[in-house]
Amino acid sequence: MRYHRIPDETVRRLPLYLRGLLLLLEQGQHNISSRDMADFMGVNAWQIRKDFSYFGEFGKPGVGYKIDRLTKEIKKILKLHIVRKAALVGVGNLGSAVLAYPGFRAYGFDIAAAFEVNPRKIGRKVGNIVVEDVSNLQTLKKRKIRLAIIAVPRDAAQCIADVLVKADVKGILNFSPCYIVVPKRVKVITIDIAIDLARLPYYISAC
Amino acid sequence: MRYHRIPDETVRRLPLYLRGLLLLLEQGQHNISSRDMADFMGVNAWQIRKDFSYFGEFGKPGVGYKIDRLTKEIKKILKLHIVRKAALVGVGNLGSAVLAYPGFRAYGFDIAAAFEVNPRKIGRKVGNIVVEDVSNLQTLKKRKIRLAIIAVPRDAAQCIADVLVKADVKGILNFSPCYIVVPKRVKVITIDIAIDLARLPYYISAC
Repeated sequence: MRYHRIPDETVRRLPLYLRGLLLLLEQGQHNISSRDMADFMGVNAWQIRKDFSYFGEFGKPGVGYKIDRLTKEIKKILKLHIVRKAALVGVGNLGSAVLAYPGFRAYGFDIAAAFEVNPRKIGRKVGNIVVEDVSNLQTLKKRKIRLAIIAVPRDAAQCIADVLVKADVKGILNFSPCYIVVPKRVKVITIDIAIDLARLPYYISAC
Repeated sequence: MRYHRIPDETVRRLPLYLRGLLLLLEQGQHNISSRDMADFMGVNAWQIRKDFSYFGEFGKPGVGYKIDRLTKEIKKILKLHIVRKAALVGVGNLGSAVLAYPGFRAYGFDIAAAFEVNPRKIGRKVGNIVVEDVSNLQTLKKRKIRLAIIAVPRDAAQCIADVLVKADVKGILNFSPCYIVVPKRVKVITIDIAIDLARLPYYISAC
């Protein structure tokens, strides 16, 4: 319970730091100063120091932060130190991209099941996974899959979310560009892939 | 130049506000308090008031913010008040999802061209767009397309970015999970679809 005061904005940045630190470890680096981290990750150095101070990490002058220790600490805070199974609902273009995406493993995610409503896709093997009928979603509880990724058309998203909640899913990553309503015990993060594009023109002078 | 002091974190939230406000307009609402906006968008009310104060928007007590005025103001700040053409590079699963995504229009983006290296995809029509050979990327300058979306495999991303920079592209939305290096005059926003999933377990109690 030591970490319960970490602000959402810091929680939002921690995975970014983690991604950068994992890359630095891969490159064989052991220590890094907040300034070098800032250059590497495109965040302010003071922001990094402030964010890390929330969980009592202080770099040593002249040495900086120990990358492996920091990586472990951030994983622990984000509860990413154990492998978590996740289910994908919707194996269209975006769902297929999610299944093929190599980046989930780095955060301890294992996409262990995929579901579709389209009979032509059900039974197909994608990577190591056999696509299942959405009517199987209720089995998630028994299979102890508590995370789900929604990649279905907008109109179907709320209905799928309702089924997921009944199947005892605790966290939903929603790629449908709409709000979905769930009980408070369930955390939803919605990703609108247009939203990041919407920030670009601000930074572009004459375009 | 009035707006040059808006912090990046506020710029990051403005598109979120804009999405919510556009939805409220669609629903026929005219005014909203920061508190109702907070409930609707899942952001703190004080954060909203602070963010809006950067560009001199202050809600009136008892009336709140005028939604249409606020929408126009945010669009102007984000330079989204004009339609901008964007090019997509890579028509794989993720690229196809981008082409099919209905959400870009709301922010004034028009995906006007798509490029591929795979000869079997070149010449195909996707929506209104005929997929072109990547060797055509150099024509972007003449066609005044200054924004590009990279949805190619990780290994190809830097090479594509180099070509885009030569073609005078000013802003890049990068879906490849890697850092790409560009001159300072070009703004890159990288989206790692795993990064948001990485925030979920933090919010889930016993999972």
